[in-house]
Amino acid sequence: MRRYAILAPGLFASRAAKTAHGVIAYSGDATVAVVDPDHAGTRVRDAVPYLQHDAPVVATLDDALAYAPNALLVGVAPPGGALPPTWRASILRALDARLEVVSGLHQFLADDPEFAAAARRSGAQLRDVRTPPPPRLFTGAAYDVAARIVLTVGSDCAVGKMTASLELVRAARDRGERARFVATGQTGIMIAGSGTAIDRVIADFASGAAEELALANAPHADLLFIEGQGGINHPAFAPVTLALLYGSAPDALVLVHLATRTHVEDFGTPLLSLPRLVETYESVIATVKPAKVAGIALNTHGLSDDAARRAIERAARDTGLPCDDVVRHGPHGLYDAIAPALAHKTRPLR
Amino acid sequence: MRRYAILAPGLFASRAAKTAHGVIAYSGDATVAVVDPDHAGTRVRDAVPYLQHDAPVVATLDDALAYAPNALLVGVAPPGGALPPTWRASILRALDARLEVVSGLHQFLADDPEFAAAARRSGAQLRDVRTPPPPRLFTGAAYDVAARIVLTVGSDCAVGKMTASLELVRAARDRGERARFVATGQTGIMIAGSGTAIDRVIADFASGAAEELALANAPHADLLFIEGQGGINHPAFAPVTLALLYGSAPDALVLVHLATRTHVEDFGTPLLSLPRLVETYESVIATVKPAKVAGIALNTHGLSDDAARRAIERAARDTGLPCDDVVRHGPHGLYDAIAPALAHKTRPLR
Repeated sequence: MRRYAILAPGLFASRAAKTAHGVIAYSGDATVAVVDPDHAGTRVRDAVPYLQHDAPVVATLDDALAYAPNALLVGVAPPGGALPPTWRASILRALDARLEVVSGLHQFLADDPEFAAAARRSGAQLRDVRTPPPPRLFTGAAYDVAARIVLTVGSDCAVGKMTASLELVRAARDRGERARFVATGQTGIMIAGSGTAIDRVIADFASGAAEELALANAPHADLLFIEGQGGINHPAFAPVTLALLYGSAPDALVLVHLATRTHVEDFGTPLLSLPRLVETYESVIATVKPAKVAGIALNTHGLSDDAARRAIERAARDTGLPCDDVVRHGPHGLYDAIAPALAHKTRPLR
Repeated sequence: MRRYAILAPGLFASRAAKTAHGVIAYSGDATVAVVDPDHAGTRVRDAVPYLQHDAPVVATLDDALAYAPNALLVGVAPPGGALPPTWRASILRALDARLEVVSGLHQFLADDPEFAAAARRSGAQLRDVRTPPPPRLFTGAAYDVAARIVLTVGSDCAVGKMTASLELVRAARDRGERARFVATGQTGIMIAGSGTAIDRVIADFASGAAEELALANAPHADLLFIEGQGGINHPAFAPVTLALLYGSAPDALVLVHLATRTHVEDFGTPLLSLPRLVETYESVIATVKPAKVAGIALNTHGLSDDAARRAIERAARDTGLPCDDVVRHGPHGLYDAIAPALAHKTRPLR
């Protein structure tokens, strides 16, 4: 088991640290310290209340070493894409101390001559979780797996698709299903310990990489919950969304939306209404392998309990589908409501 | 100007040689010989009648050198993906003879130690046209270019999107428009001398690469015809289709279909009818930046003149849109019919 120090200088309390938050909330690995000078001296639960995790936040990597981590998590994308000098120094220090360094950055640490040399010197491991698998075209083999496949689809990025998938797996297991989470993004991979960052795959092979995940995981479960990515009208990331929609060959979809989000983050494109999202996803996938939206995981983060309940009721009424917030109310209610719709395989058109 | 020898052993007369055929038909570069032992002793027009090109087909690269080529085109994807030994020997022989070697393969020749060493020895150039540009996210900057942007969209791969784009550019120029072809695939890049193979770009950046093409070409024209890729219900390649649909920010679409094609090639997914294709493309792009299908370029290759005319009339009637075969009947009729619909910019939703 890993004992993580998490590197998030100046960013731990922000949305930019969603990878760090996801690992703390859901990973089987432990987090023993977080490096963020802006919150040094506090605990994780002080900086990010919903995490309810009692590890210290410290100012430097050297401070973190006092808590005996065996791995460093670089779970925050640096603003602008280039590694700030202080991050570089912390990563080198961690490698010198023989910590495994786990990174979700697009830019691979193992390709950096200075990091690679430091890792060689100390014998430390460098793990770039976005490293793509060998190129592989979609073949249609995923149409033949026995496991039922559920894909989460969203109104946008960062609305809770990974969380909904993880929570629904938990509920399915509680109900006796042999269920499994399939990771398709950096945070999910850190949590699951396997998976493929579909966004890092060459476009021609993105659908094939999604299929490969279905093929690799199907033998180990009867019900796969595959983490979706992006949103169908996201100007930049919809190609990844579509690669998962066609490539993972789902039998059912779960729609995920953040109740307070109205426009595609950073782009300003208006989000589709929930009924239009249901219609759009279903009509697009109906041209390849029909699958219906079984229910809606509405992320009501930031709303009062009352407002959350009203938003859930409105979504259910507008779409005619089961709806709940799987974090605020737990996943069992939504899972029980959608389980009958997850009982069947669908057939591809061909 | 290049004087190409084209390497297509055993494949020149087949559909697998569509890159070779496209370069012979549309490139400003000359083709002085084709290497294909199966048709050695004939002329190009004998092996591929519709090309009407009078260069010799020869058995070996050494035979081709007699026609004084200054470049070798590897325009055929080897079956199975790995380079057959005889191809390897021909490429090495060409590099030794200081021919520039131009390749559209996914696997880059410049990454091959043996080819790279041979090129260094002789000073020959290796040009892998699929080499992707530096990663760049979509930003929305393409929404602000003054040029009007027309994207060809298709029912499937290999139905004639590149040809329709090239022919419509020719007609537009004949009508006095400052029009320009924008290449998005290997053959188009070889013809245009620039462009980006969107299918080779990392999925996260595919939409951004399409946008970058619009930005780079817009200053040089008032009307861009951007070559589309794949098809909206293609299980493997639709992510590339969608990257172009959102990323290139088109103001109008031209739908391209091969009249004899009924299913997605190699996958068996049924093609959508022309009215459903129009509706699907328009409804998907309407969620980001509305654009309408202005007309249909129907590829009637393989049909009799009578059958072709009936197919064109039926497509026009079923969709209510202008339709013609821009190769069989020339592009001017279709261009004149759709020109009014290409006169305006559309606005993104945001």
